Amino acid sequence: MQDVQEPAAWGGVEPEAAQRLLTAGVEAFAERGYHATTTRDIAGRAGMSPAALYIHFKTKEELLFRISRVGHERARAVIAAAAESEGTAGERLACAVRAFARWHAEHHTTARVVQYELAALGEEHYAEIVALRREIDRLVRGIIEDGVRDGEFAVADVPGTALAVLSLCVDVARWFSAAGSRPPEEVGSLYADLVGRMVAAPDVRDARRHGPQE
Amino acid sequence: MQDVQEPAAWGGVEPEAAQRLLTAGVEAFAERGYHATTTRDIAGRAGMSPAALYIHFKTKEELLFRISRVGHERARAVIAAAAESEGTAGERLACAVRAFARWHAEHHTTARVVQYELAALGEEHYAEIVALRREIDRLVRGIIEDGVRDGEFAVADVPGTALAVLSLCVDVARWFSAAGSRPPEEVGSLYADLVGRMVAAPDVRDARRHGPQE
Repeated sequence: MQDVQEPAAWGGVEPEAAQRLLTAGVEAFAERGYHATTTRDIAGRAGMSPAALYIHFKTKEELLFRISRVGHERARAVIAAAAESEGTAGERLACAVRAFARWHAEHHTTARVVQYELAALGEEHYAEIVALRREIDRLVRGIIEDGVRDGEFAVADVPGTALAVLSLCVDVARWFSAAGSRPPEEVGSLYADLVGRMVAAPDVRDARRHGPQE
Repeated sequence: MQDVQEPAAWGGVEPEAAQRLLTAGVEAFAERGYHATTTRDIAGRAGMSPAALYIHFKTKEELLFRISRVGHERARAVIAAAAESEGTAGERLACAVRAFARWHAEHHTTARVVQYELAALGEEHYAEIVALRREIDRLVRGIIEDGVRDGEFAVADVPGTALAVLSLCVDVARWFSAAGSRPPEEVGSLYADLVGRMVAAPDVRDARRHGPQE
């Protein structure tokens, strides 16, 4: 399990030693799970002593929290950029899905840790992550609501559909393998198309397929 | 993390002590991960001695394999029943998605363990599970291909769409919580509708929305 693009994920985290520890933490948690991993394992992978780790992260839980927060912040940034871009709701939703699915393919190991180890977070840290997740959800709902208002989408259950759209993209991290899957950008394009069909109003859909109508 | 309907999942596994160990294994793996769980933990949860566990499962890996095999066999049975039922491809796909999504909601703890601990399986056991997964995939592709042939579906990328449909349903296990989510049957109905829209040919879609055409 290796993310070729992973190192870039921690850009902005300082100092560089903290980045190395986050990468080592992701690898160790992905391989053995949070509870079977010790801070000694993580420090060792990063070529440091356990004492050096504690300079950057007071506990193993704090390291998991930092991984989770950076992961969620990046995911939110990707969705927010799409939500706030120019264009119709259909174009913005396609842009959001393409980028979000692609992100989960490129950073599948980080995304797995972020998603599967949520229950290991302490109460306050968990609450902070839940707030980020609500924001991501709100952004996607907002795009879908815009599309419904403009008559471009026909969606009876906006919260359920937003949940399904996000879930579809997040689960890319589970099945994606750097070796055996189609490239991340291809996953993004396929998913943008599938989601577009899920939400489009019939008239819009036919116009897209058959060209503009008289 | 508790599955109210979980005990029924092991119906057919004999003797009853083995069922109790499978349930205890699912609970322990879900809480702490496979690698952080000992056979002693599992035996204790089932109210048995470690020696009693070894009568039924030679190793912790064998116990995980049995959980994974039963889980995959149940999932396959649910899809196979839908694939082989009477009706149009659209009806059979809706039936498969409704049942598969619902299964992942009802048995979300087992499904999480089954999906997230695959890498802990030994080589031969892993190969056996992969064969079951290919069969599930083949069944869904078959329904989609039938629909394309009959002109009911318009799907350019059948393997990618089948993967997305299964992924959407499997990921219900990640976000579903017995306390806070809509009921499993409601998830199933929503997902059957969303997937129907993903695959339907434009004419069929409009006929469904506006009633039969002249």
